[in-house]
Amino acid sequence: MTAAVEGFTDSLARLVEEFRKLPGIGSKTAERLAFHVLKLSTDKAMALAYAIRDVKRNVRRCVDCFNLAEQDRCAICESPARDRTVVCVVESELDLIAIERSQAYRGLYHVLMGRVSPLDGIGPEQLTTEKLVSRVRAGDVREVILATNPDVEGDGTALHVAELLKSAASGVRVTRIAKGMPAGSQIEYVSDSILKDALSGRKSLP
Amino acid sequence: MTAAVEGFTDSLARLVEEFRKLPGIGSKTAERLAFHVLKLSTDKAMALAYAIRDVKRNVRRCVDCFNLAEQDRCAICESPARDRTVVCVVESELDLIAIERSQAYRGLYHVLMGRVSPLDGIGPEQLTTEKLVSRVRAGDVREVILATNPDVEGDGTALHVAELLKSAASGVRVTRIAKGMPAGSQIEYVSDSILKDALSGRKSLP
Repeated sequence: MTAAVEGFTDSLARLVEEFRKLPGIGSKTAERLAFHVLKLSTDKAMALAYAIRDVKRNVRRCVDCFNLAEQDRCAICESPARDRTVVCVVESELDLIAIERSQAYRGLYHVLMGRVSPLDGIGPEQLTTEKLVSRVRAGDVREVILATNPDVEGDGTALHVAELLKSAASGVRVTRIAKGMPAGSQIEYVSDSILKDALSGRKSLP
Repeated sequence: MTAAVEGFTDSLARLVEEFRKLPGIGSKTAERLAFHVLKLSTDKAMALAYAIRDVKRNVRRCVDCFNLAEQDRCAICESPARDRTVVCVVESELDLIAIERSQAYRGLYHVLMGRVSPLDGIGPEQLTTEKLVSRVRAGDVREVILATNPDVEGDGTALHVAELLKSAASGVRVTRIAKGMPAGSQIEYVSDSILKDALSGRKSLP
């Protein structure tokens, strides 16, 4: 009956409803998007519908590193251009994407698919640590960079993973990304914990 | 190759691209939406895809009033609860929806699907005026309310339609929606043309 009252047809009302379920999309935006779709050519509207279908149909996890993939292995694991002796461990594929954007890293990755969180009952064994250990044991890897987030749970996760790796593969160097002052920030304004990290992590100048 | 560089798979990159084509959706929002779809259950993601398809498949124009419809006639023309003696003429279905929301009107509508705009070469004959005239001639209608927008082209469109109706169906009352001070506004701040309308449209108090 909503359709009759507000002048929307049933299909249009349903599309507004579906758009409204997306994060950050309110009623007004959902209506604007629905009317936009209505005015699109059928080809263009179906391109969006098919893109939604294909993401659900094609995207899976890489069997090696748990990054998003459309084949068994992701594009990074398959690439001959990547340095296979370094593995960067991240909590999620979003972190991986951010690091790729920075163009500061050319090795492989390992996506933990979460973080150690005792309060939520998530231990290291619920993450993809078993596969990480077997990857590292299998050979080539010389360094594992722990790039979990610089907060309490991320630091804890890094410690757990470091211990696992040390007992499982003793010849591998395990490192943690640096914590300190964010580039472009001002000492006057950053938080106490940032300053603490910046001071305790200080380096000798050459 | 974008996919390999940024850590997106092809399907995900395509979905980001499709979301980015929607009005008001930038790169960051498109990525957020695409990842949201990826994390949805297949059923929920397909509900959105089907809703897009169905809008293109099902929505058409009402054969009587040119409102959006999913059958030959729209829900308003089909409703037995509407007053069939009054027709409110609007430029587009968005105006109709706004009037429906106000709950201030219970008659029928007629959507012109545009406005008279000599600069763009659009005369009254390019709008749905012919059908309006035949509807009014056919009988029941006692009043036609011209609810085109209160600006130069909307006023011009209303004048054109009023002339057509007067020469075609003499017994019908043709009215124009009131112009004046918007409710809740302050005289100190409204524009000269609003004040001009408010003064020239003044009414006697009982």
